[in-house]
Amino acid sequence: MEKEQTLIYGIRSVKEAIESEKSLNRVYIQRGLKGASAFDLIKTLNRKDIEISYVPIEKLNRFTLKNHQGVVATISPIKFLNIDDLSEIVEKKKESAVILILDQLSDVRNFGAIVRTAECSGVECIVIQSSGSAPVNGDTIKTSSGAVFNVPICKVSHIKDAIFLLKQFDIKIFGASEKADKNIYQVKFKGAQGIIMGSEDKGLSSSVINLCDELIKIPLLGKIESLNVSVACGTILYEIVRQKGY
Amino acid sequence: MEKEQTLIYGIRSVKEAIESEKSLNRVYIQRGLKGASAFDLIKTLNRKDIEISYVPIEKLNRFTLKNHQGVVATISPIKFLNIDDLSEIVEKKKESAVILILDQLSDVRNFGAIVRTAECSGVECIVIQSSGSAPVNGDTIKTSSGAVFNVPICKVSHIKDAIFLLKQFDIKIFGASEKADKNIYQVKFKGAQGIIMGSEDKGLSSSVINLCDELIKIPLLGKIESLNVSVACGTILYEIVRQKGY
Repeated sequence: MEKEQTLIYGIRSVKEAIESEKSLNRVYIQRGLKGASAFDLIKTLNRKDIEISYVPIEKLNRFTLKNHQGVVATISPIKFLNIDDLSEIVEKKKESAVILILDQLSDVRNFGAIVRTAECSGVECIVIQSSGSAPVNGDTIKTSSGAVFNVPICKVSHIKDAIFLLKQFDIKIFGASEKADKNIYQVKFKGAQGIIMGSEDKGLSSSVINLCDELIKIPLLGKIESLNVSVACGTILYEIVRQKGY
Repeated sequence: MEKEQTLIYGIRSVKEAIESEKSLNRVYIQRGLKGASAFDLIKTLNRKDIEISYVPIEKLNRFTLKNHQGVVATISPIKFLNIDDLSEIVEKKKESAVILILDQLSDVRNFGAIVRTAECSGVECIVIQSSGSAPVNGDTIKTSSGAVFNVPICKVSHIKDAIFLLKQFDIKIFGASEKADKNIYQVKFKGAQGIIMGSEDKGLSSSVINLCDELIKIPLLGKIESLNVSVACGTILYEIVRQKGY
């Protein structure tokens, strides 16, 4: 899962990584770890919305046999943008930007294929949530065909934050859901859009559905009830490309 | 790779499986295996176009520790159609059928996602080649979301056989290739079509390209030179759905 990522271990090293603004994917902390410096680190991680996994010491020992002090962090090969960066991107392209929002999509290969599709179809920025999202690691780089280095990826505490931001710019938010009344050929994609794709197993969460301006679906002509999420995402993004008159 | 498949072992059992028309994915034969009955089996396998892998005995022992006599076959959970079945399918729907032809696509997850997309977009039949194709196994079933049981899959010695058959029915053959002049929004998908998708690494082979009536591409707006093949396939199949006036 987390292979081909750079590891940082030890409480002080992980703190330094945060201070030097490295993008941490996730921090693994030994269950029941005690001490003021550990407590302080956890507070910082929570404040910065960095995902923490509490694990048995054996798991940490599998990462490294060096003196990890109960703390191992995996570093992302890319630097994630924050909500302010997203705001700047949208500000510049508010007439035409396509912003792709992923609601806790957790499979690395799907994520990689989606980043690749986003790059190929001219998506301005991808938004993911700090917790519950597939990490950016070696597998993501490979399945994205390197596109993770070309498309800005913005990490937010909750994707609602990104939705509210886009709404401030009067950008219409479309949610992909089989519950939609309209299919993608019945809606007009004009100007700028936010497109939200749900997770592989649960689709869009109901709180996110409520924030969408419109739900859209892809017509399903057989018995299977949904497409693979990366295929669905590609079909929607390319319908936007087509409608925008490529 | 071949997990969750039924295994058959022993020369006589594999012969019986062929006679009772079970769909063998592949037969593993011990390197240097001698004897008239082994020779006879290999002849039958070649005649039936069943893929053979010659492997060291250790590989066979990993499949089973029972008396395999140097021969282990993996059985497909589905029954593949042959070229005559394809002919019947096309005959019935020659005004509108979409036939999807996969040119040695080897990744199980891509294959599964494509079968799923084919089911959802109303493809009449998928054609794969006996050698070089991803097997239908437990992973394929899972990633196809069970669609392998809903879409007929036809296995042919060489996909050219299927192309020649479709041409006899005056069905236009489109090959997906980045070398195409026209993109999918510039061609008209009318009536029946054969759509050929290439392998993940090499795309369409040049001999197959020569048999296509028209090459088509998906516009790529970024720097990456291709989409994931299952995403590309979905984008093309759904452009056909759209043009056919869903």
